[in-house]
Amino acid sequence: MKLHNYFRSSTSYRVRIALALKGLPYEYVSYHLREGEQRGESYLSINPQGLVPTLELDGEGVETGALLPQSMAILEYLDEAYPEPPLLPQGPLERARVRSLAYAVACDIHPLNNLRVLNYLVGPLGQDRKVQGEWFRHWVAVEFAALEQRLADEPQTGRFCHGDSPGLADLCLVPQVVNGRRFDCDMTPYPTIRRIHEACMEISAFVEAAPDRQPDTEN
Amino acid sequence: MKLHNYFRSSTSYRVRIALALKGLPYEYVSYHLREGEQRGESYLSINPQGLVPTLELDGEGVETGALLPQSMAILEYLDEAYPEPPLLPQGPLERARVRSLAYAVACDIHPLNNLRVLNYLVGPLGQDRKVQGEWFRHWVAVEFAALEQRLADEPQTGRFCHGDSPGLADLCLVPQVVNGRRFDCDMTPYPTIRRIHEACMEISAFVEAAPDRQPDTEN
Repeated sequence: MKLHNYFRSSTSYRVRIALALKGLPYEYVSYHLREGEQRGESYLSINPQGLVPTLELDGEGVETGALLPQSMAILEYLDEAYPEPPLLPQGPLERARVRSLAYAVACDIHPLNNLRVLNYLVGPLGQDRKVQGEWFRHWVAVEFAALEQRLADEPQTGRFCHGDSPGLADLCLVPQVVNGRRFDCDMTPYPTIRRIHEACMEISAFVEAAPDRQPDTEN
Repeated sequence: MKLHNYFRSSTSYRVRIALALKGLPYEYVSYHLREGEQRGESYLSINPQGLVPTLELDGEGVETGALLPQSMAILEYLDEAYPEPPLLPQGPLERARVRSLAYAVACDIHPLNNLRVLNYLVGPLGQDRKVQGEWFRHWVAVEFAALEQRLADEPQTGRFCHGDSPGLADLCLVPQVVNGRRFDCDMTPYPTIRRIHEACMEISAFVEAAPDRQPDTEN
């Protein structure tokens, strides 16, 4: 497998954690997002959206060179094709809970704070960096408050978002916490999120997959 | 079942189509989004995010009153709990393709054009309606161009996004097309998307679930 990605991309980070948890080796292919490499012809021929990550499959049982875009689709694929350890629990209701926590990050925070959106604010909308930072922190604060409430109140929460094994929701939450640090998001109001983040960072897969440990890491 | 939703919400529309396709009856509970009812105490006690839809389950085999937030989690739940007709194909690679098309709408278009974001543009950012409309059309145009390319080029596309039965990707695409009309999105460059949308609108589930057919429909 090849993972077409970027060290700082939080959607890439989700997939790197899953690959590490499942013990799947892969070739790391980097595209420098701030330099626009994801919009170059070579990447667009792999992924017409020009968004990272893309997982390129090769070998046994799959069409050679199958290209999977969209981090959430990749994570579901990895869990179906390589079930151990599972990223989702067994029952439909439990799976729905975990997915709903994951999508609260994947649909309601990350898309609003993606690089292309931040660039649109300072480009076409002519806003300054201060407004850009407020935008970023606004969406994190609104959604982390709701997530904190659910994680604190719902009895299914354990050491991790759901029970005592890391899963799909943790794979989305941890990269979002890391991303938030770059924009100085105040994490004080979210003790449960902080606790779960710390529990995850005791697991080597989360540490190895982190932005500060990749071949293309920059300060 | 009760669906807590709003006629014009495209995420609610996705779920209404799934319920109709699977022949599942439900009680329709409406929250007027423009009047902020989704942020009232009674809805927040059901869904701390204050976003529609929420599917409330009752009866056989499930915890009474189980509350499922997040449309994409609801759709996956419905497909697991009520497998016929399926919203996803069988093989992991095929499922990944359908999910990746669905998430291109659910993660990369809809979250940017949600009511709360449009309100933030004219509220805190002080932009006018013209800029708001350009914002809406920009993200639709960028993503529909990439979707059109994939749907036109990939051999798995059939009468619908994947083969000749409607599925998860169509459930996301059709409400996005309908939503785009309200902001005068030019659909000329997307003949494949238009063709699939038309094919869907020959199916009664898509017609019955549409915003113009709901108990709370307004002009």
